[in-house]
Amino acid sequence: MNIQQLTTSIFQKRSFLCVGLDTDPAKLPAGLSGTTQDIITFNKAMIDATLDSAVAYKINTAFYEAMGVKGWEIMEETLAHIPDTHFSIADAKRGDIGNTAAQYARTFFETYKFDAVTVAPYMGRDSIQPFLDYPDKTTIVLGLTSNKGAADFEQLELSDGKKLYEQVLTTVAGWGNADQLMFVVGATQAAALKNIRGLIPNHFLLVPGVGAQGGTVEEVASAGWAPNGGLLVNVSRGVIYASAKDDYQTAAKSAAMAYQKQMQAAFEKQ
Amino acid sequence: MNIQQLTTSIFQKRSFLCVGLDTDPAKLPAGLSGTTQDIITFNKAMIDATLDSAVAYKINTAFYEAMGVKGWEIMEETLAHIPDTHFSIADAKRGDIGNTAAQYARTFFETYKFDAVTVAPYMGRDSIQPFLDYPDKTTIVLGLTSNKGAADFEQLELSDGKKLYEQVLTTVAGWGNADQLMFVVGATQAAALKNIRGLIPNHFLLVPGVGAQGGTVEEVASAGWAPNGGLLVNVSRGVIYASAKDDYQTAAKSAAMAYQKQMQAAFEKQ
Repeated sequence: MNIQQLTTSIFQKRSFLCVGLDTDPAKLPAGLSGTTQDIITFNKAMIDATLDSAVAYKINTAFYEAMGVKGWEIMEETLAHIPDTHFSIADAKRGDIGNTAAQYARTFFETYKFDAVTVAPYMGRDSIQPFLDYPDKTTIVLGLTSNKGAADFEQLELSDGKKLYEQVLTTVAGWGNADQLMFVVGATQAAALKNIRGLIPNHFLLVPGVGAQGGTVEEVASAGWAPNGGLLVNVSRGVIYASAKDDYQTAAKSAAMAYQKQMQAAFEKQ
Repeated sequence: MNIQQLTTSIFQKRSFLCVGLDTDPAKLPAGLSGTTQDIITFNKAMIDATLDSAVAYKINTAFYEAMGVKGWEIMEETLAHIPDTHFSIADAKRGDIGNTAAQYARTFFETYKFDAVTVAPYMGRDSIQPFLDYPDKTTIVLGLTSNKGAADFEQLELSDGKKLYEQVLTTVAGWGNADQLMFVVGATQAAALKNIRGLIPNHFLLVPGVGAQGGTVEEVASAGWAPNGGLLVNVSRGVIYASAKDDYQTAAKSAAMAYQKQMQAAFEKQ
């Protein structure tokens, strides 16, 4: 699935919800242990419960890598369970020189057939170009993140008065068009989100930080809306850990539906 | 192995050579195919051939991830073949918010027992702290890289006249001491290397970019030497692809010995 197909899905479903599968074996609900089979069962249950409400799934690779080889097997089976009707993101935040970046692009676009992958901008254009060389895939570049550490470097002021993240957004936006390039922008920075929408009016923003990290759907939609929707809001813990009991699947379904309703309301305001 | 033990090894062997195991199945020498067993055979041959000349090995995770589950098995077997007498680095360049960074730290320090891992600074302190929380392990942060794209963001001038990479180096150096923190500094930037040594006089620098990327051992040693040595020069292609024929093991051994001789000469000049 590419960004155009994602946009169609967003307008049809009145939802821009991405469910984050940050599955931690230590946090599985009652009745499930940390075995390969149980983690796959949990992930499939999360996907099945949220298919109607969500338009995308984001797999946070760190949680799978930490399990070793078994984790990559689980990731593969989880990805296979995401239907073609939904957009799949590897949240991997990779970044390296050209020949190594090409291997990472191969990893997530060929070995695993994700629709999109997140990448880090620090090393510049040749660390991102190998991902953009896949025209039917989507490259999602870190812009302004939702964590406290964003103040350390991302928000530094440059000699021309711009902030580093602003320079990253506008420079990288020149390397690929809005059909294959998105940016990660944290929801905990609503004022910044509005500013960012002004800088890059047409690019999709992948917005984490709603729910556990503090942002709300309403703030995000009000600050970040674009003519094409242009928003994908990720919720991880707020959906997949909605209940620690054996009603975890229905709880996740309800949580995702509640987010979808907030998104529908946001649509109606635009 | 920690940085102090690495330092002892460097002074004993008169070598600061790190061999980069960026093993590409498509580039294996004559007689070896891309099977799991052949790649392991090749990696073990590279390690065995360079044990005397090298003090460290760096596994570039991208090349293994691109093979899928099989690649992580190969990485595990390769790591197991690196003896305790040598320093092992996962060149993974990870970077994410705190709870995710903690999973990456677990991946490389617990699930796989590397001595060190490379990380990206863009997202700030809480993306690096979970790695520093392992006091016996080494965290290697990207400073100034050796690729062309380094000009895009790393070398941007900040409002106080410093360059971004200078700010990254001095800020991050305040987050951990020189016993557990290193920086990646590209060898193709010799003038910058001298400047960096002035900014962070005591920290080890992991220097890629010698050989295939253009830098020389002499330039690096002259610009980057510190009282504790403070240098680890990585060579990947120049050693592991020294021959494409069936003499690949002796060719790698000779190439590594030649680098060690250059390093010994550099020692004698200090």
